[in-house]
Amino acid sequence: MSLLFAGTVALDHIITPTDRGENLLGGSACFAALAASRFLQPVHLIGIIGEDFPQPHLDRLERQGIETQGVERSSGGSFTWTGEYHDDMNSRSTHAVALNVLENWQPKVPAAAQTARFIGLANMSPDNQFAVLEQCTAAEKFVVADTMDLWLSITRPRLLELLREIDLLVLNEGEAKDLAETGNIVKAGAKIRALGPRFVIIKLGEYGAILFGADDRIFRCGAWPLHEVADPTGAGDSFLGAFLGELAAAGDTQPSFEALSQAVVTGTVAASFTCEAFSTAAIEAADAQAFAQRRQQFAEISRF
Amino acid sequence: MSLLFAGTVALDHIITPTDRGENLLGGSACFAALAASRFLQPVHLIGIIGEDFPQPHLDRLERQGIETQGVERSSGGSFTWTGEYHDDMNSRSTHAVALNVLENWQPKVPAAAQTARFIGLANMSPDNQFAVLEQCTAAEKFVVADTMDLWLSITRPRLLELLREIDLLVLNEGEAKDLAETGNIVKAGAKIRALGPRFVIIKLGEYGAILFGADDRIFRCGAWPLHEVADPTGAGDSFLGAFLGELAAAGDTQPSFEALSQAVVTGTVAASFTCEAFSTAAIEAADAQAFAQRRQQFAEISRF
Repeated sequence: MSLLFAGTVALDHIITPTDRGENLLGGSACFAALAASRFLQPVHLIGIIGEDFPQPHLDRLERQGIETQGVERSSGGSFTWTGEYHDDMNSRSTHAVALNVLENWQPKVPAAAQTARFIGLANMSPDNQFAVLEQCTAAEKFVVADTMDLWLSITRPRLLELLREIDLLVLNEGEAKDLAETGNIVKAGAKIRALGPRFVIIKLGEYGAILFGADDRIFRCGAWPLHEVADPTGAGDSFLGAFLGELAAAGDTQPSFEALSQAVVTGTVAASFTCEAFSTAAIEAADAQAFAQRRQQFAEISRF
Repeated sequence: MSLLFAGTVALDHIITPTDRGENLLGGSACFAALAASRFLQPVHLIGIIGEDFPQPHLDRLERQGIETQGVERSSGGSFTWTGEYHDDMNSRSTHAVALNVLENWQPKVPAAAQTARFIGLANMSPDNQFAVLEQCTAAEKFVVADTMDLWLSITRPRLLELLREIDLLVLNEGEAKDLAETGNIVKAGAKIRALGPRFVIIKLGEYGAILFGADDRIFRCGAWPLHEVADPTGAGDSFLGAFLGELAAAGDTQPSFEALSQAVVTGTVAASFTCEAFSTAAIEAADAQAFAQRRQQFAEISRF
């Protein structure tokens, strides 16, 4: 049942209409691993950091049951993202991205993680996603990848190759429409499935998510309505993490559509927690009881 | 259990990426009345048309159990809307609006409709909505109003007066955020309730709708995922119509939050039908069996 997440490990600088934070723990793999660790421990984390990365951030991850042996410390600066949220958190702009150590990274998966059966390729370049996947040796595995608009623009052929090697792709609405070359979200799900992955999840941000499977099966999940959004950074990564964490805890590398649907709900709940505080604070604080309670309330407000 | 809808009765000229139609039956009150007529007949329709309004459109409405005695025929041209949909139907632009007979309309509610207990004030000016409401004499009634961004801009004080006289306001997400002066949709629902109506529904287009009630109660309804959208014109009006039609058929002027939630699902299904063909063709064709079937499928893809 071992589980790994590979992706970015970042220092985030974030500005919101009411607050700001610098050198915050961030990155796609960190949010995903933390969310997954609510369901299964240890979670193997694969990434790269620079000389400047604070040891307390790594200690924090380890305290949450995350195995950081696969986080390579390299000379140079850590990957950083500087972003600002506007308009009551409904839009954001990126002020700066510094790739730094990420630029020439050759991911190395430690021996203990190579046999992982649940593999989360969080958002990073398709080349890096491939490099991680190629080191994973389990005969039976369930592979989920996330991506972003940048990779659709600059390295689409490589992304299309990756789609033939994975079980499930997670991406947001704009990316899905771009990749599928259609403005209709239902068609987009079907067209992306035809590119390789048996399952596709289109994330709709504050409107929830849609899961697509074989025979045009669809699961339409809403989202938890948040009264306050402190910092949405990492919400999608947390979705991925909790989604795959729940599946890994169950241990079936051929999960049913129903199991995937339940995991989508869990991912949606994880994303809602992440939005409630800066950086990883809220997802770290969410325990099994908090998940169960919100899931129950979510079911109540969605039931008909 | 009598039910009336007042609003616009229009001739629509519509252009989509693949098709176009002219002098189509349209208008907020027509879509609403047609959707409501799936659940209860007769539905009293209050509106105004010009000399040019085709008799076959009126015949069509009457064949669906809509009482058109309250549709005044006046000298001058009918209200027309000319719009075009782009980008796989995800955006639209208005080419022309001709108010014509609507400009100096003084709504008159026929005696047979004045005792209606379920009153749908479909989208039109707040002055006209007030004029209709003042002619409604039932001691116990349930009053629902829709609105649009135009009225928020040019006649907000009058709209705010109206909010104190109605039970439920329906509006879309952008309008709700504008009216409540917040970018957070959950806060918007609560703030609009504080302006008067006991219930608020925020329509999210292809993402569904949210119902807000007392004690911060929320019902979050998704939307039926459409493979093809032929013409979304009137989807929101159809939502309003089916929503109130189902409540009127049940007959309780103090509906429970649960009954309202179920009616939101019904409204969402009605909106999905309307999108499937030009003008009112698809909502007219949807019978009780079609509603029951889609509702069932909708429940299946939303259940967790």
